[in-house]
Amino acid sequence: MHKKIGVIWGDCASKEIVAQALSVLEAIEKKYGHEFEYTKILMGGEAIDEMGEPLPQSQLNLCLEQDSVLLGAIGGPKWEGLPGHLRPEKGLLKLREGMGLYANNRPAKIWPQLSEASPLKKEIVDQGIDFIIVRELIGGAYFGKHELYEIDGEKIAMDTMPYSEHEIERIGKIAFETAQKRNKKLCMVDKHNVLETSRLWASVFDRLKEQYPDVEYSTMFVDNAAMQICKNPSQFDVIVTENLFGDILSDEASEITGSIGMIPSSSLGETSNGLYEPIHGSAPDIAGKDVINPIACILSAAMMLRYSFDMSKEADDIEQAVDSVLTKGYRTADMMSEGMKQVGTKEMGALIRKEI
Amino acid sequence: MHKKIGVIWGDCASKEIVAQALSVLEAIEKKYGHEFEYTKILMGGEAIDEMGEPLPQSQLNLCLEQDSVLLGAIGGPKWEGLPGHLRPEKGLLKLREGMGLYANNRPAKIWPQLSEASPLKKEIVDQGIDFIIVRELIGGAYFGKHELYEIDGEKIAMDTMPYSEHEIERIGKIAFETAQKRNKKLCMVDKHNVLETSRLWASVFDRLKEQYPDVEYSTMFVDNAAMQICKNPSQFDVIVTENLFGDILSDEASEITGSIGMIPSSSLGETSNGLYEPIHGSAPDIAGKDVINPIACILSAAMMLRYSFDMSKEADDIEQAVDSVLTKGYRTADMMSEGMKQVGTKEMGALIRKEI
Ligand SMILES: CC(C)[C@H](C(=O)O)[C@@H](O)C(=O)O
Ligand SMILES: CC(C)[C@H](C(=O)O)[C@@H](O)C(=O)O
Repeated sequence: MHKKIGVIWGDCASKEIVAQALSVLEAIEKKYGHEFEYTKILMGGEAIDEMGEPLPQSQLNLCLEQDSVLLGAIGGPKWEGLPGHLRPEKGLLKLREGMGLYANNRPAKIWPQLSEASPLKKEIVDQGIDFIIVRELIGGAYFGKHELYEIDGEKIAMDTMPYSEHEIERIGKIAFETAQKRNKKLCMVDKHNVLETSRLWASVFDRLKEQYPDVEYSTMFVDNAAMQICKNPSQFDVIVTENLFGDILSDEASEITGSIGMIPSSSLGETSNGLYEPIHGSAPDIAGKDVINPIACILSAAMMLRYSFDMSKEADDIEQAVDSVLTKGYRTADMMSEGMKQVGTKEMGALIRKEI
Repeated sequence: MHKKIGVIWGDCASKEIVAQALSVLEAIEKKYGHEFEYTKILMGGEAIDEMGEPLPQSQLNLCLEQDSVLLGAIGGPKWEGLPGHLRPEKGLLKLREGMGLYANNRPAKIWPQLSEASPLKKEIVDQGIDFIIVRELIGGAYFGKHELYEIDGEKIAMDTMPYSEHEIERIGKIAFETAQKRNKKLCMVDKHNVLETSRLWASVFDRLKEQYPDVEYSTMFVDNAAMQICKNPSQFDVIVTENLFGDILSDEASEITGSIGMIPSSSLGETSNGLYEPIHGSAPDIAGKDVINPIACILSAAMMLRYSFDMSKEADDIEQAVDSVLTKGYRTADMMSEGMKQVGTKEMGALIRKEI
């Protein structure tokens, strides 16, 4: 098969992990006779440096022409001082919106080989951590109005948090379908004792759940969810929630797996052209040192094969390669522990490639 | 001293803990020759049942006439189906607003006797968990507009999240002063890469920090804070944040202490008339069984003595009494572990009273 992949090399240590992900894709190309055509796309700090803004329209257009887009991570201290609309993150938000990527899929899963890295107690980890947070990605406070005005000489800031029925419905369907393919449990997280948007979420989900009688549906307040993720993560299969809550809870969820350098994510909309990226950042402190863990980016490439290209065997191959390299005891610095063999970014990529 | 205390007995298992808190206060009265005058105030489910709304104006007025107000917890399945403005929680929100309680102080502290109950690993717990979350309590999305309208037959919900400079400044001062009395570290949590309110918070705090040069000030994104609370809680001394983020993070923080049945809270405004309450809920499942842990409510009474009545010796007495009862091995069911002596709500109250 021939597929066009947009590649956003990203900032700081990001290029090092993207290079390894591409080399793993090359191994897949050879093994299965596929042809991946790469187009370099500028977004984030690099786009600010070279083109003056974090996501020029030309680069968004390039993304829209691809079969899928692979991203490392963006941002860094160099661009911190810039005004809001010129910050690297703004490029990412514009990309999500421009590609219509409303469904962000963030798995929280313990790799048995790394279970000791979890900050949670063994008794809790041993009950299993394997759930997915489906985060709505282009609605709510992220895409509401952000205003600053003055009344009688006093500054007042105001953000709005809007959600419409169709925005909730489309993410709701994805969430129920995701649960159907897993253990058939869906928990919708909101704050309906306070927010009107949450009440609309709750009413749309109450309607939707009738169409998925095989899925066990429940709701939970966001404050309680923040507790339960620490206390008893094994209770969850699929969590669905709005943009801001999803941002907070998915970071907490990734932390309890203890291996944030291992977690990929997908963002999808109405078409199969999605955005795949690690959930970790661009790690400016270790840039250029051949130290950063490339696995989250490599697994993001695997997710791309599975969800955008329907290549599940190929994706399985990559995931199994990662699994066996970990089982053989190879670790990058972030996941190093006693008795294991520490390797750099490039060597980790090469080891995974070799397994394919 | 003579003090007027408003008592909200609350719903479900709440009355059982309030009874124990009052009996401990009685011991303090006798020991120090104080006189506490109690006024029963209806709020929450009980107020709905007896007066048709969660906080009738007459009851709010009663609260305003007191020197301080002690609350158990409100809510329960009985009132779940009611429309938003008639739910028990609405009474609590109206009370916070009506009393002008903008500063909610939620300590997250491990009791050494209970450190095994934390869901976190021993290595992390042993580094110490002892921080306070100062949550802004009467601004932001909780007190913005909550609208539902229709455009072309589609429902759209919208919450607004407003903050004005003076609202941020007054909570900021409390936060810096709290840090000054502790380990002089303040972390302001926001999402300034997305929200305008966060950018206003950041700019007000940047101005304020100049007045507190002895306090080490930092900022953190809310998604990162949700990770750091699990990963490395010992880094925190005082966290200050807006209402909704504070709701989520303070529940997560209480969970990692492993003893949510032990955590009191204070809510204060411009006067010394504050509201003191456990951070746990009304525990409908164990109501009437003499099982609920009364300690969070008893410690809330201690906080009231300390912060509203300036009775720090009396507050110390209560806290030390709790400490020694725990050291002697007495536990309510929620904190029971091997080798300890399990007692009911009343007996736990009596044991603490006896130490005073
Ligand atoms: C960079 C930031 C705007 C972004 C978000 O909040 O969505 C990030 O935290 C994420 O979760 O992808
Ligand atoms: C009951 C609810 C409205 C309340 C809040 O969100 O403030 C509660 O969760 C709390 O934290 O005191």
